[in-house]
Amino acid sequence: MDVDPRNPESVPVFEGDIQQPQAISVEETSEIAGEVRELVRAGRENAAWELIRHLHPADMGSIVASLPRPSREALVHVMSPETVAWMLRQMNPVVAGRVGTRLGAQMLTFVLSQIHPNQALATLRQIPTLRPQKVAESLAQPLVAEEILSHDPDTAGSLMATQLPMVDTNGLAEEARESLRTLRENRDKLTHVYVVQGSGVLVGQVGMVDLALADDTTPIRTVASSIVATVTVDTPAEECARLQHHYNLTQIPVVDGNRLIGVILSESLLSATVEQDTRQMQQVANVAGETVDGPLSSSIRTRLPWLTVNLGTTFLAAATVALFESTLTQVVVLAAFLPVVAGQGGIGGTQTLTLIVRAIALGELVGVGARRLLAREAVLGILHGVWLGVLVAVIAILWKQNLGLGLVLGVAMLGNMMIAGSVGAGVPLFLRRIGVDPAVSSAVVVTTVTDVFGFLLFLGIASASITLIT
Amino acid sequence: MDVDPRNPESVPVFEGDIQQPQAISVEETSEIAGEVRELVRAGRENAAWELIRHLHPADMGSIVASLPRPSREALVHVMSPETVAWMLRQMNPVVAGRVGTRLGAQMLTFVLSQIHPNQALATLRQIPTLRPQKVAESLAQPLVAEEILSHDPDTAGSLMATQLPMVDTNGLAEEARESLRTLRENRDKLTHVYVVQGSGVLVGQVGMVDLALADDTTPIRTVASSIVATVTVDTPAEECARLQHHYNLTQIPVVDGNRLIGVILSESLLSATVEQDTRQMQQVANVAGETVDGPLSSSIRTRLPWLTVNLGTTFLAAATVALFESTLTQVVVLAAFLPVVAGQGGIGGTQTLTLIVRAIALGELVGVGARRLLAREAVLGILHGVWLGVLVAVIAILWKQNLGLGLVLGVAMLGNMMIAGSVGAGVPLFLRRIGVDPAVSSAVVVTTVTDVFGFLLFLGIASASITLIT
Repeated sequence: MDVDPRNPESVPVFEGDIQQPQAISVEETSEIAGEVRELVRAGRENAAWELIRHLHPADMGSIVASLPRPSREALVHVMSPETVAWMLRQMNPVVAGRVGTRLGAQMLTFVLSQIHPNQALATLRQIPTLRPQKVAESLAQPLVAEEILSHDPDTAGSLMATQLPMVDTNGLAEEARESLRTLRENRDKLTHVYVVQGSGVLVGQVGMVDLALADDTTPIRTVASSIVATVTVDTPAEECARLQHHYNLTQIPVVDGNRLIGVILSESLLSATVEQDTRQMQQVANVAGETVDGPLSSSIRTRLPWLTVNLGTTFLAAATVALFESTLTQVVVLAAFLPVVAGQGGIGGTQTLTLIVRAIALGELVGVGARRLLAREAVLGILHGVWLGVLVAVIAILWKQNLGLGLVLGVAMLGNMMIAGSVGAGVPLFLRRIGVDPAVSSAVVVTTVTDVFGFLLFLGIASASITLIT
Repeated sequence: MDVDPRNPESVPVFEGDIQQPQAISVEETSEIAGEVRELVRAGRENAAWELIRHLHPADMGSIVASLPRPSREALVHVMSPETVAWMLRQMNPVVAGRVGTRLGAQMLTFVLSQIHPNQALATLRQIPTLRPQKVAESLAQPLVAEEILSHDPDTAGSLMATQLPMVDTNGLAEEARESLRTLRENRDKLTHVYVVQGSGVLVGQVGMVDLALADDTTPIRTVASSIVATVTVDTPAEECARLQHHYNLTQIPVVDGNRLIGVILSESLLSATVEQDTRQMQQVANVAGETVDGPLSSSIRTRLPWLTVNLGTTFLAAATVALFESTLTQVVVLAAFLPVVAGQGGIGGTQTLTLIVRAIALGELVGVGARRLLAREAVLGILHGVWLGVLVAVIAILWKQNLGLGLVLGVAMLGNMMIAGSVGAGVPLFLRRIGVDPAVSSAVVVTTVTDVFGFLLFLGIASASITLIT
């Protein structure tokens, strides 16, 4: 469908259809963002708004969020508060959270105070990263903060929608339809109607396809199926993401005891998955929770503690080297090869670590014994070490015309690659066993160990065989 | 719902419902896997099968895949080929691919040759990672390899289902229902019925909820809406994943020109997302495509080339150090601080790099100018460098009682942190601009630059101010 998104007349329109805007590519979005920026800078906010008003709210949001603060505020003032709130509600929750944060609590409060409290609440609920409680309290007419706002942002409680269709287990398909019809929010996003008994005890579900195919008079029991997984408000978001992925679920009911109290929709589950993956990737580099465009102070708060911890660990490496000062004085060329041994060990260890951390997160290590994994990575380390050891020895011999140096370097390389494999696998497996998230702190431990042992091996062997080298 | 998964009688059963097994935790799965392994080892495959036959196919698959090869084959022979094929079809496609690979082409061929060709094809389609073409060709009665098997595994073509419900734009809701009803596969997984015109030109869609609420005589036009995004068979899987995430889509129609030819279901989209995230995380560590449990040879093929490239780059660092041999001879203690300067730079650069790579992948950099990002990271580098520089200077002065050494170290640290920030942001942004995936090769470039410049700065300043230090 080659349709110009900015010319909605070219899109086929259906009766009673709110015009669905078309997807555009990242490049097109960037291009339009540039034009919008120019227009707003020239004081032509209305022209800028005309340019984006027919876009998909997800693209509209990206563009608004990309503007520098004064332009952003000028543009938001041209859009109606209802439009801004609608845009946030239509976007992927994680991205909406980012845009909301970019807008700032003040602008958001302004937007939300202009619209109906129910809409404001629904919007706030879409922005899980913003600690909505704070914004809710700062509104001129404080919202009746529903319990949902009190849940931790990383739990099922904060992801769930509380309005959902239910039908009694003795009911008919007609009643399930009625319950769908009376729903005010999220109606289009539901894939199941839940089957309950008595005072809301969850006993099953009816898929939307089965409901679509059922006659009004079909008893619900005959089209219902049982539930694969339920969670409670305290279930971590990452466990919800795992359940979705592992069991192919489109939505997960939230229960309190046996009672159905909410549902996590597919879009929230997907956002939880993507968010969790982002966090995991960032945790290995110790930058978790940061965005590329947030305030400097938050970046410093995230990164500096780890940089400082790491400084401590590099001094461990420095102290190891310092142990061998007299050897280095005799053969100063050894200093040049320090980064070779340590660097290779660090890279090898990180490769192993990354694989294991990700496999743990995806639940792929079921029944795969820790001992088997450790042995596997150690063997790989030896195989890599043999190749790299020979290579490094040959290069050193050719470069420095020093056979002894080459041999020492080769042996140290072999030893350190074996250590890198074992430690790269052992540290995350050990952390998981003692209940610590291996993504958070494995990297710093692994590189410290490979640095220290790499130097110990290299300089230790060199000292022991100093007559070979000098 | 505290239900014992191994006692299905405790689960409420609905008439006509194929009993849906319950989700269990990763720990429970590991425990059952242990019991199964013991039973199979004792030659009691039938008892082992009894233990897992009531589990969810996803858990059944994890457990089967976790067994050592001989036990796995013994257990699969007890299960009927139909059951194995059913298990693979029910699982998340990525995991099914892994399990299929674990089973091996031979076992898979055995399973598939026992079942109906249509089922075999549907099963093969669920295993995108296995290059199904190869298995299809090796079957005793070769399958009529549909075009789907010829698509590249990382494209929309390999993810799509080709049987899907359609209704003419002038039709009634009744006809949409009929088209759903006659569908043999994936019926329960669909969220939309597509609206077509003439010879299959895609013009819109009807959500399942809207269809469920429509009367049989409702004209489709009145409940249809337009399509947000379409892809072609060649669209990369990662672009499909981005579309799903950005636009909150549950499924994406695949078109050839204007004609509807397939649909990517929500579970395939989710798998594409998770797979893409895994690959990205692994690419930063250069282990992309590996699994923790694959053959050693494939791990070596993935990792060794990068380790070898990295060896080259560490020799660049070694050559830099070697430039300053005479300085090191005069002040051998400098050697001990080499890992401090380079290590901090490497960590700082990797932090920045990880953030930027992920932001690029999530399409978060719309309208955020490269220059602004570079400036931001450089400023952060300076701020971090000031703190770390002061800290490192103080420690060095206290440890080695050498004021000059402390000053040189502090200044080199400041400089290298600034370089780390700029390079960590600059390399992935540059690679993106020239059309190279920044996840693949950024890390090795960034650590090389921080090593080389760290040593140049530290030893260069030390040489220039040698009188201060000695």
